[in-house]
Amino acid sequence: MTGKAVAAVRRAVREFLETVEAPAELCVAVSGGADSLALAEATAYVGHHRGHRVRALVVDHGLQDGSAKIARDAAEAAKSLGADEAEVRRTEVTGPGGPEAAARKARYRALAGHDLVLLGHTLDDQAETVLLGLGRGSGARSVAGMRPHDPPWGRPLLAVPRATTRAACAELGVEPWDDPHNAEPRFTRVRLRTEVLPLLEDVLNGGVAGALARTAAQLREDSEALDTSADRIFTRAGGPDGLDVAVLAAEPAALRRRVLRRWLLASGVRELTDAHLRAVDALVARWRGQGGVWLPGNLEARRAHGRLCVISQPTTRGE
Amino acid sequence: MTGKAVAAVRRAVREFLETVEAPAELCVAVSGGADSLALAEATAYVGHHRGHRVRALVVDHGLQDGSAKIARDAAEAAKSLGADEAEVRRTEVTGPGGPEAAARKARYRALAGHDLVLLGHTLDDQAETVLLGLGRGSGARSVAGMRPHDPPWGRPLLAVPRATTRAACAELGVEPWDDPHNAEPRFTRVRLRTEVLPLLEDVLNGGVAGALARTAAQLREDSEALDTSADRIFTRAGGPDGLDVAVLAAEPAALRRRVLRRWLLASGVRELTDAHLRAVDALVARWRGQGGVWLPGNLEARRAHGRLCVISQPTTRGE
Repeated sequence: MTGKAVAAVRRAVREFLETVEAPAELCVAVSGGADSLALAEATAYVGHHRGHRVRALVVDHGLQDGSAKIARDAAEAAKSLGADEAEVRRTEVTGPGGPEAAARKARYRALAGHDLVLLGHTLDDQAETVLLGLGRGSGARSVAGMRPHDPPWGRPLLAVPRATTRAACAELGVEPWDDPHNAEPRFTRVRLRTEVLPLLEDVLNGGVAGALARTAAQLREDSEALDTSADRIFTRAGGPDGLDVAVLAAEPAALRRRVLRRWLLASGVRELTDAHLRAVDALVARWRGQGGVWLPGNLEARRAHGRLCVISQPTTRGE
Repeated sequence: MTGKAVAAVRRAVREFLETVEAPAELCVAVSGGADSLALAEATAYVGHHRGHRVRALVVDHGLQDGSAKIARDAAEAAKSLGADEAEVRRTEVTGPGGPEAAARKARYRALAGHDLVLLGHTLDDQAETVLLGLGRGSGARSVAGMRPHDPPWGRPLLAVPRATTRAACAELGVEPWDDPHNAEPRFTRVRLRTEVLPLLEDVLNGGVAGALARTAAQLREDSEALDTSADRIFTRAGGPDGLDVAVLAAEPAALRRRVLRRWLLASGVRELTDAHLRAVDALVARWRGQGGVWLPGNLEARRAHGRLCVISQPTTRGE
């Protein structure tokens, strides 16, 4: 007999698998924490019913004393919860960015090479991601949070609170591992989890994590709709000799900027900021015969004869 | 000679007035606080240059001892800062909602009846509004914050930090009034301002208020673009015998739901929740011959012969 929490996690996995084309083998990333153990059990249970094989993947970052043992224990736990196989992958954490970013990148590298890898991110992780994005502030993209399906990654638990995965582990009689990094106040995400979100929940009378996750889901759908429209406009406006200004000018600002973004990236512009996009958009929407817009990589966007084009300006600024 | 802060506030007012059709008389709501005094000065300065008359409107809520004197002082200050006229309007705070909401409604009522009334909301107010909306969580609308121009209201200072309006008052040599309500921790907005935002700024290394305001601005533009598309689709799909399912089904979810929202509101449905919208959308996107969707007011949305219609179900549930 299983309890309510286990049932909720299994339901989330079932609903996720109904929305994707799942391969014969389902992989689950397992850290040994409550989220991934609950996910591993649910994936094994639901996956076997649907005829899938289930493989647990454990990444050993080698960052902490005893990490090899923690990884072996996680793999054992995943097998005891029903996974057909469990495998430990050792990785090196190197590369740019803070320690959180480097560890995340190493983990994703170690897990790559499969069609579908399920990750245990919960509603609370999503709320933290949205808050992080808000603080960085670059529109819908930054607040849209993590996507439920971003191949090869699948995140069935984005609507399941962390409390539910903990309760599921209790119901299953497994003892999850508590990553000491999850209590390290030098990590931004940890402070969002332990300080900011509890304060927000208190000030706004609860329900904040759910509200953030719901908002993120709606903003993702909004972004997808806008991206679809922008693709169509780009197809209509684009051509070998640049972008047709008249086509762009008939569209609202949010679409113009998305089309311009696609076009500039396709034209080889890198490190595009919102300020660049707004300056190029002014060539369309606030045209008064102004000069070109300088872009990273010695490129210039300019308007001539009703079209926008990107030209290369190798060394000195001409004209 | 004026300082940098005064110049920044004036610039914001000038840029705002260039984007709207401003009437001959500009009204400014003045509380006597730093934001509205800085706004009154800038509106008088920029407005007179552009040939407008400037009228300061002071609302006396009668909520605090001495509120009549505070209102008179605010009106005097506005005149000394250049307003052609300054007028105190006394109002009663009654009605449903918490004390913040009731006072806000009374204020807006007292200020109505003009073509354009400028309000002193700053970047920080916008950040608080976005956070409040996030906690309520209903998509882009909730995080889009306040609009710069929502006739008759104009908000020229949404990109100006509160610190700048305080600095402007210091440069102008006026002493702003500090509303004791602005320090009352029983008000949600006050706790967002004094507890949540400072903590977020600390955790995310600053720039949060600006990031929230920028994100809100982009989400507003996104929403406007989606609303424009939804209007067009509604026109194509609508008809006297209901909504054409085939037209809707070709569109992405975010647009379908916006069209359905318009259509249901136009069909007399009130108190529409996201759950209702998703259920009606399932008649389009996940059609398997299911029955109608019950809506508030004894209405039912159902699908028949490739069209959606709303029918009235007076008392008992038929079929």
